[in-house]
Amino acid sequence: MNKVAVYRKEHFNAAHRLHNPLLSDEENEKIFGKCNNKNYHGHNYDLIVKVVGVPNPMTGYVMDMKILSDLINSEVLDKFDHKNLNLDTKEFAILNPTAENIVIVIYNLLRDKIDNKLDLKIRLYETERNFVEYPC
Amino acid sequence: MNKVAVYRKEHFNAAHRLHNPLLSDEENEKIFGKCNNKNYHGHNYDLIVKVVGVPNPMTGYVMDMKILSDLINSEVLDKFDHKNLNLDTKEFAILNPTAENIVIVIYNLLRDKIDNKLDLKIRLYETERNFVEYPC
Amino acid sequence: MNKVAVYRKEHFNAAHRLHNPLLSDEENEKIFGKCNNKNYHGHNYDLIVKVVGVPNPMTGYVMDMKILSDLINSEVLDKFDHKNLNLDTKEFAILNPTAENIVIVIYNLLRDKIDNKLDLKIRLYETERNFVEYPC
Amino acid sequence: MNKVAVYRKEHFNAAHRLHNPLLSDEENEKIFGKCNNKNYHGHNYDLIVKVVGVPNPMTGYVMDMKILSDLINSEVLDKFDHKNLNLDTKEFAILNPTAENIVIVIYNLLRDKIDNKLDLKIRLYETERNFVEYPC
Amino acid sequence: MNKVAVYRKEHFNAAHRLHNPLLSDEENEKIFGKCNNKNYHGHNYDLIVKVVGVPNPMTGYVMDMKILSDLINSEVLDKFDHKNLNLDTKEFAILNPTAENIVIVIYNLLRDKIDNKLDLKIRLYETERNFVEYPC
Amino acid sequence: MNKVAVYRKEHFNAAHRLHNPLLSDEENEKIFGKCNNKNYHGHNYDLIVKVVGVPNPMTGYVMDMKILSDLINSEVLDKFDHKNLNLDTKEFAILNPTAENIVIVIYNLLRDKIDNKLDLKIRLYETERNFVEYPC
Repeated sequence: MNKVAVYRKEHFNAAHRLHNPLLSDEENEKIFGKCNNKNYHGHNYDLIVKVVGVPNPMTGYVMDMKILSDLINSEVLDKFDHKNLNLDTKEFAILNPTAENIVIVIYNLLRDKIDNKLDLKIRLYETERNFVEYPC
Repeated sequence: MNKVAVYRKEHFNAAHRLHNPLLSDEENEKIFGKCNNKNYHGHNYDLIVKVVGVPNPMTGYVMDMKILSDLINSEVLDKFDHKNLNLDTKEFAILNPTAENIVIVIYNLLRDKIDNKLDLKIRLYETERNFVEYPC
Repeated sequence: MNKVAVYRKEHFNAAHRLHNPLLSDEENEKIFGKCNNKNYHGHNYDLIVKVVGVPNPMTGYVMDMKILSDLINSEVLDKFDHKNLNLDTKEFAILNPTAENIVIVIYNLLRDKIDNKLDLKIRLYETERNFVEYPC
Repeated sequence: MNKVAVYRKEHFNAAHRLHNPLLSDEENEKIFGKCNNKNYHGHNYDLIVKVVGVPNPMTGYVMDMKILSDLINSEVLDKFDHKNLNLDTKEFAILNPTAENIVIVIYNLLRDKIDNKLDLKIRLYETERNFVEYPC
Repeated sequence: MNKVAVYRKEHFNAAHRLHNPLLSDEENEKIFGKCNNKNYHGHNYDLIVKVVGVPNPMTGYVMDMKILSDLINSEVLDKFDHKNLNLDTKEFAILNPTAENIVIVIYNLLRDKIDNKLDLKIRLYETERNFVEYPC
Repeated sequence: MNKVAVYRKEHFNAAHRLHNPLLSDEENEKIFGKCNNKNYHGHNYDLIVKVVGVPNPMTGYVMDMKILSDLINSEVLDKFDHKNLNLDTKEFAILNPTAENIVIVIYNLLRDKIDNKLDLKIRLYETERNFVEYPC
């Protein structure tokens, strides 16, 4: 009762390549097309973090947006911004960095750091026309 | 468990007129105002299709966005883009093309073509300030 | 069954200051930082009102967007647009005008005026990067 | 010296068809393609009016944005909003309503009503991806 | 020859009131309407700084965007963000904070700090629908 | 006289790294910071092509937007979309792919293909907050 959702938008720029090492080169090329380019391509990722809870009656805040922004910066942006997701991050050293997998990874990175009384949902824009959300 | 939503944005441009043939001209004019103009007006419709499912572990995709985009183009945009909804489409030959009715029609057109294991939701922007979503 | 959501976007410009009179000046400064500036700062608030119901078969409308827009103008914008929320409104004379509290107040102002058969949800953008939603 | 540009954004929704009555049906179809659909299609037109002048030292205004908005409404939107440009307006009864021709017409409608000491330029968005500007 | 324009977008949130102390209260009310509210209102100001010059052949930069962003932050945002322009700033202690006057003040603040070989132009959005540019 | 500007917006996704091979690694790191990451990062580039000319009186077009879009696709997007600018393109094999250099390269690619009677200007968004324009 009286739960409010608060949202914070951040962004990062990264290179990636869609590739599953368990598949042959031909299968990767067939499934992922130009997104499989061996030299990588990249995106401006927009990230929207949704936190749901009852506002603290003393502050009127569900969560201080400054603290949430700092958390997203330290847990997500410091890892992924201006990086090659496949080469520079341990999260996607093996895991294929599709938008679906990135949004699950970001959720898990933040879930550990946010009070369990607060619900969490992540939306990630790979482009203005392709985006994902987790959990559903 | 581990369901992810994927979204694809497309758009089309169409003319329409709000009019219910079961009502008199006076009632149509009273209810629909300038949207009832007998010579039609038009919109840039933005369409966001949401598909929810468990990512395929081999591809990391809930659904290939290229396939979803092609499907929206063949099932929806080829029918409605640069058309007069009232005159050029069988869907709105009788049914009044309000945003509510258009979004239900688009849902039904796509629902038949997408795997039943995947949930589907449609958002349609008639203008930046008026938009609808189905189902709820 | 066959419920559709309709959304209407409006906006207003207002000054505010985050401050809880039950706390000391030092505590207010510590919690709210630059948002506690005693001379106020301000925002362009974007407001999205979501109404959910079954479309009327005669009109194809869940609710006439003109009526919804007029209602938002008379119940919300006339009260808050070009106002100082802390000084010019009775709603925030004591209540701290955080985005969370503003969105709850707007929900309550509109809930009384909209048919109970229709569900209502409000989203409020304080900036492009900070926004809230109620209820959840 | 010390000239400032002020801009006001408005929008209107209209149906149109690209067609030149001096050309044959085959030539019209070849040149204008799906934009030549005889039953019309439509757009949400976004209009940005730019006025350049020296701010009045007493008001700090180049031009009162309320007056400019009212002028755009009375001279442009009342003529074109929720209309079929080809059928409902005398300006495009013969003149082909391409974005280029519409922006010139809007410039001429407003130029007569704005003080000659002020420069005027119009930008018109037919879609987010196709837009025009006049004069250059 | 070979000049390139580079643009950097920043934003700040501020309260203000349009008021000319040389005019009577009645005249201020008549000219500025609800913008004259004695308790202030506010805006999310979006600021776009344009710098024009020949790219340095060694760096490929007209100007390092990080340096430009830092400069905008130290010279403009530190002065105006989360402030009441009329009460908290010496620039608008007397000068009426219309968008036209704010954009001229911002230009002058930055012009002193940027190499004279580089041209400078400022665009300021007071709302999405009202914005200004200087110089012209 | 009676010149109109027409604009077409397109986009592409690419990886890049800012690096000048004439400078030492230390100098590159110092000048370009995280943009110098040896494994690349990436962007969604938005591209706006402006063409200025007198509308053809028979068509009402300065230039057919379909032809302009096809030209941008064949001359620019086919070269750069889903590519690593440094590794996959001859244009940036040596030339540092700063936004300034990319916009000049795109201008030159298109200038050769567009009638000399038409003026051409290119705007390139590297992010929503950093963009460039050429020529000036």
